[in-house]
Amino acid sequence: MIAPPPDPREHLRRPDTRSTLLIQHQILVAARRYLTGQGFTELLAPIIGPVTDPGSRGAKQVDVDYYGHRYKLMTSAILYKQASLLAFDKLFYVAPNVRLEPPETSATGRHLVEFHQIDVEIAGGGRDDAMRVAEELLRHVTAGVVSELGDELAALGRDPGSFTDLLHNPFERIPHETAVADLRRLGHPQSADAELDWTGERMLSEKAARPFFVTAYPKGSRGFYDREDPRRPGVLRNFDLIAPEGYGELASGSERESEYARLVARIRETGENPAKYGWYLRLARDGIPASAGFGLGVQRLTRYLAGREAIWQASAYPKLPGVVSP
Amino acid sequence: MIAPPPDPREHLRRPDTRSTLLIQHQILVAARRYLTGQGFTELLAPIIGPVTDPGSRGAKQVDVDYYGHRYKLMTSAILYKQASLLAFDKLFYVAPNVRLEPPETSATGRHLVEFHQIDVEIAGGGRDDAMRVAEELLRHVTAGVVSELGDELAALGRDPGSFTDLLHNPFERIPHETAVADLRRLGHPQSADAELDWTGERMLSEKAARPFFVTAYPKGSRGFYDREDPRRPGVLRNFDLIAPEGYGELASGSERESEYARLVARIRETGENPAKYGWYLRLARDGIPASAGFGLGVQRLTRYLAGREAIWQASAYPKLPGVVSP
Repeated sequence: MIAPPPDPREHLRRPDTRSTLLIQHQILVAARRYLTGQGFTELLAPIIGPVTDPGSRGAKQVDVDYYGHRYKLMTSAILYKQASLLAFDKLFYVAPNVRLEPPETSATGRHLVEFHQIDVEIAGGGRDDAMRVAEELLRHVTAGVVSELGDELAALGRDPGSFTDLLHNPFERIPHETAVADLRRLGHPQSADAELDWTGERMLSEKAARPFFVTAYPKGSRGFYDREDPRRPGVLRNFDLIAPEGYGELASGSERESEYARLVARIRETGENPAKYGWYLRLARDGIPASAGFGLGVQRLTRYLAGREAIWQASAYPKLPGVVSP
Repeated sequence: MIAPPPDPREHLRRPDTRSTLLIQHQILVAARRYLTGQGFTELLAPIIGPVTDPGSRGAKQVDVDYYGHRYKLMTSAILYKQASLLAFDKLFYVAPNVRLEPPETSATGRHLVEFHQIDVEIAGGGRDDAMRVAEELLRHVTAGVVSELGDELAALGRDPGSFTDLLHNPFERIPHETAVADLRRLGHPQSADAELDWTGERMLSEKAARPFFVTAYPKGSRGFYDREDPRRPGVLRNFDLIAPEGYGELASGSERESEYARLVARIRETGENPAKYGWYLRLARDGIPASAGFGLGVQRLTRYLAGREAIWQASAYPKLPGVVSP
């Protein structure tokens, strides 16, 4: 079903690769224009550090030897985003991440070991603020691609009419428990206590006419930094942004936990040792701002807008899980 | 002499850090505007790969375990820049690099383990084309910072008049052999067969009124990808761009070697096994375009324009050689 891994000697010579990468360039131009215009400052993301996002769904972290100390390649920039709110109220990165995904995910069409996120954080913001920025950002970027790169979309056989609904109508917000009920009604045994599984997410994505948010995931399905709803214990103040047409998840975000004692408790709940998060927890003990934010996958967004079958087609140097390549 | 390493709990809270990072953001805004306006396409740089720039001056590469294979963190994006000319004639990255520099370089004020380069490549270009783009890019970026961020420069005590000469006069081009003769005349025992040493480079930098190029370094001092001058064996068609006031090297560039047989010979001359460069040499055997390009250090340029004492002051999350930090 999904296009097989690329031949590195052919991939960069293909006209469809070139068209897709031009769309990616335009996505980043438009994203920077929108975010800078909204008062966000772009920072350069870290690559390695003593600790990173613990992640989920079986992806492994990459260790590196840093002058005799065990460092990690960043799986996401979340800890540094929160720290950077000490300097800027509104900030973003185009952050590179590396996650050793299980080899079986090489066939999902959506997983790359090496990928980038447009990583946004807003001091004092709530979940609605983060969702509003994500929605406006996606609309602004899509409008930019449609208006600037009609020839490339045509060359790829991508109908610009696919985006009419996205460009003109607000995105729905569906609570996780409603999504679970919808899926069960459709005959899919989605767990109420977990992330939407890939089949379930694809089912919702395929019947949608435009991107939509799923909100309020159960605790345990996400990182310790997603804030628990004070009025609904066990439920997180977070969201995913999911593309239509079966393209699936584009972004994840949340209100953040910023209180030192609660961060320590949440880390312990996941079975990790808080001591591992030394520099981050020392900053949190001194005080970091409350915030909300999200990470939007650049290659996933490129794949969706360019209408490509597999995510490796949206990367100049794709690394599929378990596959050795440049 | 150089400011001591930062306290991570204080660094991001300092107003001078904030001013410096605003200047860095503006540098990247202006660089992207200039390069995109000149027809360059921005690509996302790789983070890890089977092989990377062998580098020089004692910096070590970082190994990672990639599904049982030994990969490296990128020390520069040079091999991927050349490969990407198959898709785009004019391209650039803002590429993250990691080099484990010797701990003694933590006191130079110019070395970070983790840093970024504005990495430019021009198919069919010669050294003069690359130097012209580097010079115009630096002038455009400096003009942007001076006109947009006068308040931040003032807050840092950086006189915008420091850049008047840069903004109005062409940069000198000094052959390496002339630089060596100048330094010997000044009493400094610079080797004719090596890079300018740090003392020599600082001496030239301190007496300059504006940035200048040093060209035509001896073979052996640089990577195998710097093209050897066909009319002057042993001399490379390359250059450094050096800032005045003692700030030192900002950028390095060259015409590239692109012929398969010469690449193999040059790799062998450095004592490395060409088999290590598998994917790159397979592409070169099929044919990659001749080109020229350069990498301009983002944190070094930030330090120079912001007038900061130490390069760690130009990074949000500085990693000094041998120092454990976020």
